[in-house]
Amino acid sequence: MAKKIGNRTIILENRPSIVGYGSVVGKKEHDGPIGDEFDTYNDDSRFGEKSYEKAESRLQKTAVETALKKCDKTEKDVDCIFAGDLLNQCIGSSFGLRSLGIPFVGLYGACSTMTLGLSLAALTVDSGAVNTAVAVTSSHFCSAERQYRFPLEYGSQRTPTAQWTVTGSGASVIERSENKPYINAVCFGEIEDLGVTDANNMGAAMAPAAAATLMHYFSDTKTKPEDYDIIITGDLGSVGSNLLYQLLERQNIDIRCRHNDCGLIIFDLKKQDVHAGGSGCGCSASVLNSFVMHRFESGDFKNILFMSTGALMSPTSTMQGESIPGIAHLVNIKID
Amino acid sequence: MAKKIGNRTIILENRPSIVGYGSVVGKKEHDGPIGDEFDTYNDDSRFGEKSYEKAESRLQKTAVETALKKCDKTEKDVDCIFAGDLLNQCIGSSFGLRSLGIPFVGLYGACSTMTLGLSLAALTVDSGAVNTAVAVTSSHFCSAERQYRFPLEYGSQRTPTAQWTVTGSGASVIERSENKPYINAVCFGEIEDLGVTDANNMGAAMAPAAAATLMHYFSDTKTKPEDYDIIITGDLGSVGSNLLYQLLERQNIDIRCRHNDCGLIIFDLKKQDVHAGGSGCGCSASVLNSFVMHRFESGDFKNILFMSTGALMSPTSTMQGESIPGIAHLVNIKID
Repeated sequence: MAKKIGNRTIILENRPSIVGYGSVVGKKEHDGPIGDEFDTYNDDSRFGEKSYEKAESRLQKTAVETALKKCDKTEKDVDCIFAGDLLNQCIGSSFGLRSLGIPFVGLYGACSTMTLGLSLAALTVDSGAVNTAVAVTSSHFCSAERQYRFPLEYGSQRTPTAQWTVTGSGASVIERSENKPYINAVCFGEIEDLGVTDANNMGAAMAPAAAATLMHYFSDTKTKPEDYDIIITGDLGSVGSNLLYQLLERQNIDIRCRHNDCGLIIFDLKKQDVHAGGSGCGCSASVLNSFVMHRFESGDFKNILFMSTGALMSPTSTMQGESIPGIAHLVNIKID
Repeated sequence: MAKKIGNRTIILENRPSIVGYGSVVGKKEHDGPIGDEFDTYNDDSRFGEKSYEKAESRLQKTAVETALKKCDKTEKDVDCIFAGDLLNQCIGSSFGLRSLGIPFVGLYGACSTMTLGLSLAALTVDSGAVNTAVAVTSSHFCSAERQYRFPLEYGSQRTPTAQWTVTGSGASVIERSENKPYINAVCFGEIEDLGVTDANNMGAAMAPAAAATLMHYFSDTKTKPEDYDIIITGDLGSVGSNLLYQLLERQNIDIRCRHNDCGLIIFDLKKQDVHAGGSGCGCSASVLNSFVMHRFESGDFKNILFMSTGALMSPTSTMQGESIPGIAHLVNIKID
């Protein structure tokens, strides 16, 4: 039985494990520091489709198929899929996955979606409600730019705090298992809003949520940063990561020695002109389902915290003068 | 322990129950046949806010507060809230609920969101992961019209198959209990797409998904329509309901004697000029958390099927020539 400890943290007891994983990215991500770790990439930003949105659907389907293939499964073996993306009405997921015939739970957690889906998949498998679940999410630089900011053709200049939306997708297959990395604990975040209004500085908008979730988790579990091999955030980038350090230091928590961010792992900030780093649902999804899982396999990671972060705004809310609420969901992934 | 039976259906065993519920609607819904059953209504379509989107956020917050108050709880008692809406990036939920400080699971299931949230809340409570969860969703006629179709000022004519988006919200508080209506079974739907492309005929787009989920459920549970007091769909309206009957009759299933639809319950189709009936996330949410719950209290309902239906499209997907995929999630609600 799952059980809640402290205020927020849910401990799972039946080892819902990542038994399969897959990742797919675009050219820029493949050119980055961990480019060789992704399963698939494509030089064509439309991935053979007629639009960027259809390309994003293609990304999700490819990630799921790759993840299933790697653990010798097909879509018929999956009881439930947890999926979402950044596009209006999450069409990346619904059109990408409609042909698979898998019971579909649609999510919207902005860039926190990978951890959100992983958490729900783990809870559902842990409870015995289903045997096999999949969590998947995606983002695409071109579909995100034109929806959230400007069409690429506009050629607008980016601010130094801006981040670069990752073109990519990652999928995890979850089942009970004895010898794979498993989700030991889940901590759903609450919505945090410190009044940041700069839609070109998502790292700042999300850092308070990341700090709040981490503090809840450390308090609930009576653990400290040094107890983990690494603490990986989703897409705070360089600006948001520094803000996270500052917010945590006020509470006498120092994670610098253990922290990295998927948005800083996937791109070379000096060489790739991505300003404050990578972002998007596909950022933490593709890094988890490649870089992170490979290090569990090599034995480098045995006990980590993985926390995707999201900004729960829309262009409409920004135009109506609203600030940018953030959220961060955390999972503790372990292997014995 | 929850357990899966047949292909799709999950049976819950610890009676996750609807211990509190709340509804709030606009003027047109209050003028309808069940207008007196809603907890709150407001003649002002902006609900005192400056925009329709902010009004929708206000709706969700009001529904949650009403539901909590009715079972003598506050937001501090809630371990997790499952919420979503139709607005781009689900800002109805994120801005409506950000001040509550409740761990937040964002969903996107289009108009299927009430059953989606209810299912996940029930699964999470059933498993012991949390003690108290809330499911909430909303829609607003004015915010939906301008986002999906035309701004109201445009004065466009509506087709006969069009439905009227309900301005309303409903929230359910879920806890284990012995003497309240409880979620006995959950059946997540898969995405169904029979190629309907008319964005003014959502009922037709959603009916195949409704038929598929019902057939899975009847097959899994070895039950038939007559075993239930009522089978309530979310917002198929008159056109979609008739299509559902036809699709099921091909499989020798007749639900006419037991079926009703929230979109036909909430409005008087003859008097209220709503064409094929009500729709929107708030349709099934407000009808569940008023009309349906009242009939459990009066003893009229003891064992029902409740199934919200959603169309997983966006204006972008329609403009790119895509058809409209549908989805339907089902719960079996019982009281002993």
